[in-house]
Amino acid sequence: MRGNSFGKMFSLTSFGESHGPAMGVVIDGVPANLSFDLNVLQGELDRRAPGKIAGTTARSESDTAEVLSGIFEGKTLGTPIAVIVRNTNQKSADYDKLKNDYRPGHADKTTQLKYGIRDHRGGGRASGRETVSRVIGGYFASLVLPQVKVKAFVSKLGPFAYSALPENLNSSFGPYSFPDTTKNDEIKNYLEDLKSKGESVGGTVRIIVDNCPVGLGEPAFDKLKADFAKALLSIGAVVSFSYGLGEEMANMTGSAVSANASSFGGMEGGISNGERMVMTITFKPTSTVGEKAKEGRHDPCIIPRAIPVVEAMVKIVLADHFLRQNAYAI
Amino acid sequence: MRGNSFGKMFSLTSFGESHGPAMGVVIDGVPANLSFDLNVLQGELDRRAPGKIAGTTARSESDTAEVLSGIFEGKTLGTPIAVIVRNTNQKSADYDKLKNDYRPGHADKTTQLKYGIRDHRGGGRASGRETVSRVIGGYFASLVLPQVKVKAFVSKLGPFAYSALPENLNSSFGPYSFPDTTKNDEIKNYLEDLKSKGESVGGTVRIIVDNCPVGLGEPAFDKLKADFAKALLSIGAVVSFSYGLGEEMANMTGSAVSANASSFGGMEGGISNGERMVMTITFKPTSTVGEKAKEGRHDPCIIPRAIPVVEAMVKIVLADHFLRQNAYAI
Amino acid sequence: MRGNSFGKMFSLTSFGESHGPAMGVVIDGVPANLSFDLNVLQGELDRRAPGKIAGTTARSESDTAEVLSGIFEGKTLGTPIAVIVRNTNQKSADYDKLKNDYRPGHADKTTQLKYGIRDHRGGGRASGRETVSRVIGGYFASLVLPQVKVKAFVSKLGPFAYSALPENLNSSFGPYSFPDTTKNDEIKNYLEDLKSKGESVGGTVRIIVDNCPVGLGEPAFDKLKADFAKALLSIGAVVSFSYGLGEEMANMTGSAVSANASSFGGMEGGISNGERMVMTITFKPTSTVGEKAKEGRHDPCIIPRAIPVVEAMVKIVLADHFLRQNAYAI
Amino acid sequence: MRGNSFGKMFSLTSFGESHGPAMGVVIDGVPANLSFDLNVLQGELDRRAPGKIAGTTARSESDTAEVLSGIFEGKTLGTPIAVIVRNTNQKSADYDKLKNDYRPGHADKTTQLKYGIRDHRGGGRASGRETVSRVIGGYFASLVLPQVKVKAFVSKLGPFAYSALPENLNSSFGPYSFPDTTKNDEIKNYLEDLKSKGESVGGTVRIIVDNCPVGLGEPAFDKLKADFAKALLSIGAVVSFSYGLGEEMANMTGSAVSANASSFGGMEGGISNGERMVMTITFKPTSTVGEKAKEGRHDPCIIPRAIPVVEAMVKIVLADHFLRQNAYAI
Repeated sequence: MRGNSFGKMFSLTSFGESHGPAMGVVIDGVPANLSFDLNVLQGELDRRAPGKIAGTTARSESDTAEVLSGIFEGKTLGTPIAVIVRNTNQKSADYDKLKNDYRPGHADKTTQLKYGIRDHRGGGRASGRETVSRVIGGYFASLVLPQVKVKAFVSKLGPFAYSALPENLNSSFGPYSFPDTTKNDEIKNYLEDLKSKGESVGGTVRIIVDNCPVGLGEPAFDKLKADFAKALLSIGAVVSFSYGLGEEMANMTGSAVSANASSFGGMEGGISNGERMVMTITFKPTSTVGEKAKEGRHDPCIIPRAIPVVEAMVKIVLADHFLRQNAYAI
Repeated sequence: MRGNSFGKMFSLTSFGESHGPAMGVVIDGVPANLSFDLNVLQGELDRRAPGKIAGTTARSESDTAEVLSGIFEGKTLGTPIAVIVRNTNQKSADYDKLKNDYRPGHADKTTQLKYGIRDHRGGGRASGRETVSRVIGGYFASLVLPQVKVKAFVSKLGPFAYSALPENLNSSFGPYSFPDTTKNDEIKNYLEDLKSKGESVGGTVRIIVDNCPVGLGEPAFDKLKADFAKALLSIGAVVSFSYGLGEEMANMTGSAVSANASSFGGMEGGISNGERMVMTITFKPTSTVGEKAKEGRHDPCIIPRAIPVVEAMVKIVLADHFLRQNAYAI
Repeated sequence: MRGNSFGKMFSLTSFGESHGPAMGVVIDGVPANLSFDLNVLQGELDRRAPGKIAGTTARSESDTAEVLSGIFEGKTLGTPIAVIVRNTNQKSADYDKLKNDYRPGHADKTTQLKYGIRDHRGGGRASGRETVSRVIGGYFASLVLPQVKVKAFVSKLGPFAYSALPENLNSSFGPYSFPDTTKNDEIKNYLEDLKSKGESVGGTVRIIVDNCPVGLGEPAFDKLKADFAKALLSIGAVVSFSYGLGEEMANMTGSAVSANASSFGGMEGGISNGERMVMTITFKPTSTVGEKAKEGRHDPCIIPRAIPVVEAMVKIVLADHFLRQNAYAI
Repeated sequence: MRGNSFGKMFSLTSFGESHGPAMGVVIDGVPANLSFDLNVLQGELDRRAPGKIAGTTARSESDTAEVLSGIFEGKTLGTPIAVIVRNTNQKSADYDKLKNDYRPGHADKTTQLKYGIRDHRGGGRASGRETVSRVIGGYFASLVLPQVKVKAFVSKLGPFAYSALPENLNSSFGPYSFPDTTKNDEIKNYLEDLKSKGESVGGTVRIIVDNCPVGLGEPAFDKLKADFAKALLSIGAVVSFSYGLGEEMANMTGSAVSANASSFGGMEGGISNGERMVMTITFKPTSTVGEKAKEGRHDPCIIPRAIPVVEAMVKIVLADHFLRQNAYAI
């Protein structure tokens, strides 16, 4: 009820403060007898980890997944799966000076207002580190729906824009998840330049879902589009969500919409229709700027690292709705 | 679990098919001893009702609220409040021809795929009539937080756009909820013209929230922005959500964002900071066009009628989060 | 969250005060395409209705089920099913004298303490009339698991005791649900004598479940026995629950238990094992005694009328767990 | 939804298999700014730990609590509190022989039937070790309601019976939690004798709650008595629950009940009335008997070790209902 759980049948409960002992997640609702591969899970965590992408934060954190329950001899048991990631890279800094330092656009002030207490050494629950729980959850969601393809990519990052949908979703889009990989060097230089200036930048991410089963999503409040919106807006820096033609529809007539099948973004009445789903979200720039942002641990643009988090949240919504729908197939 | 409930402490359960006996809602979690006024509730329903706005559907439906429980001598009892609205205006049409008529962009086909059965006489649960449950819920939510001002208005409707925030939220914006009321006649003519052509149009709605208590929203999955997004995307025709500067942020630097307090849209870290909240949503045009759309019961633009629904969903989210936060104030 | 909902996948939301306009229930989670028979539903309500059993309350109430949603052409739609029963038999009594009349053992005082307000004309939500919602829910639960046989019977009613398990579960046990139907006249006389004295009496009920699928129940908190216990203790007058050999086990050794398969009551580790389930509950006598109890509307023993309620709650638990288990069978 | 969570506002999510890496729990809903004392928490775990009570299992396990989140500088943060206990004492036994060894009365067979897989090295989720999560939860629940006194004691253990309510709840009842501590040596001898015979025995536990706030419990499904019943029946070996005069009421008249205030067990209409609560539960004997039961790790009677688990579950129910009630006090 304090909002640290997500999903009804495939349910995540996330815990951990960025400067506490560990981040972690309990996933209740993973079906039994699915094959578990720690290397694949670790690979997903590595995509999110800092220090792996040139131009993004240099902090090298291991983010090593430790499975505490729910797996036996390489299979899921059907019992809750708990996975933790230790917080290893906390500097013994003079944290006292941060006690009353409320960073604008962060949860520092609102956390204090809400709880009357906070762990001032970092973002606490509001830290981007909390997203490790989601990446872990996304891995297990993909075991539930292995046939579904969920691919997110950077469609805008500062001056770099990619407005089409990439043709080959199986190819890697490189360290910046930007489909036009010929721009990688330019993006790298752009980000390093931002970093040296203590500046940050926002952007957009698009998500494609292929092979989604029909009939997922519920007709009233738990429409699939509504749960996608919630899942993606629950990521700290995300400030907008749209699907299908999105905001363009404000300028369209009904005739134009009806003539364009992709208008519906793979969902009609909030229920999947079996066609390709397309969603778009906006990330705000991180609000830490200036001298502080020149320090090693700050990213000038968090979007590339957020890609696995975005994919994970979409997978979790789909796994949850798939199990819900399956319950009633009697 | 079939998604007909919304909210955790202030919880709505909606029921009813458009062509069944009645629409209704049970609201569990309304605190006791609040004063109930049936006339105010009925007034909210009337704002949503068809046939009240020139240029919108001519079907005259009474949509009379009947309270079945939870109220005693003009006060809430703290017990579940059930309210129903009878469906009175169903024509004895030849519904059989609709049996295999799947309207594009509606839930007709996906409902059939999902359940293997549907009430083909109308939209069923996916009908816009389902939103009466939300308007009723919104009325009771406003009893929980009477001091909070929630105001939605049309910021775009076809060629008509209003990009500023209106200064006086207490004034009526007229039948089209468009703040520049000098345009009312033009809008009327525009809509009647659309109607005669069997055409429809989309648009945008902005929502302002003033006087929201600080500390509402939970730091991980149930961020206030996430629950607003879900609430609003659960409305049938809504295809995008943003808050604060929204999509503009994709083009902004961190410095620009930090310099602009309204960037944060009244929420930091997903938690209300006491400042004004601003959100924007896009409505797609209704996909029913052509000869069928020229019939009386079709709106060329549903947005004006959706305004009370939008306000209700925002109020429900706020009441729910207020009660959740209050639980832990011990 | 105010406790008016029960079940997770097969979920009831109950509403209504005994002296308000109507009692009702919304059932969300009934699978689509099941055949609905209003006569059978009404028959279940009639079993619970007052005035049908000699020796029980003489108040003749119709308790007519009115279906508001979720059914179309005799089939469930998969959408929420709302059913109401109007409260028709409220006398225009001088209710003011009841305002500060807190009946011992009833919820009158605690309701006032809890909410600071109550509908003093009757028991409100705590009235036995609330159980119509459960009987309705039980009917729909039986559509989910038609092959499961749930049979409750009176095993003790004042001096009348039946300690064995009846052999033929399909035979009717008559108006008192007492398997030794040769005692019916004696029971009738006994109850009429109690009534004339303004006295009441308690008793016990046993429940047999045959043909339950294996694997229902969850190993930690939602053990099947735990959910049965909750379901049955949620009935107003129930003061104890046991299953299998129950309290006898306090005096038994492990050897004795292991040697007796029926010890386990059809559940091992809280999960159904496919064998017969047996449960026993105790009803306290109604605490209204003396002159007031001699009036027409009071039952000297409510147990016979509670039998369909007991069966309904057991069916609801089973349907809920069946759908939960089915969700993960992928 | 797989039943590993308990409580709505004060919510536990339990994880861990007995022979996996760790047992653990995430508690979401502990209010912020409460003082945390690891020593007190550890003391509660020690009460439950094996090998601490003469006559009970000799296995010495440390059961050391490790806090992973939610605590900062000795205070609760209001964020989820994760605590784990490593499983340290697993012998490298020849587990293969256990693969098809389904112990009667345990979850072995039903777990296999339910999931199609199980960790055959031990009881898995159904192991008594799972109860460490409850003891940890109970500690945090006691921070929410420090003024409430919850005391459980053994009222029957084989031939030893204590039928009164002890006068001084603050005194220790010794290693067997039996109020007549003069019997301790006899009990010790009795248990050692059972052990040597490979035998086990059942018994009963009574729970007293003093100083409970009025108004806790919800009038329909979430009656306080119903949630107590569920909480206590969710403990593996518990086979019955009653409150107040319990089963005796089957033999009582309404007059007798009305004349006896303690009949109501501190709850009227399922809502706390401020008076003392009394509940009684039955434990079955462990069904492992014979040669296997003579090994070190088996208890001839688990009841003394279950006392802190019983107290914890009652505290958790009370904390949960207290927060729920508090939410609506606006």
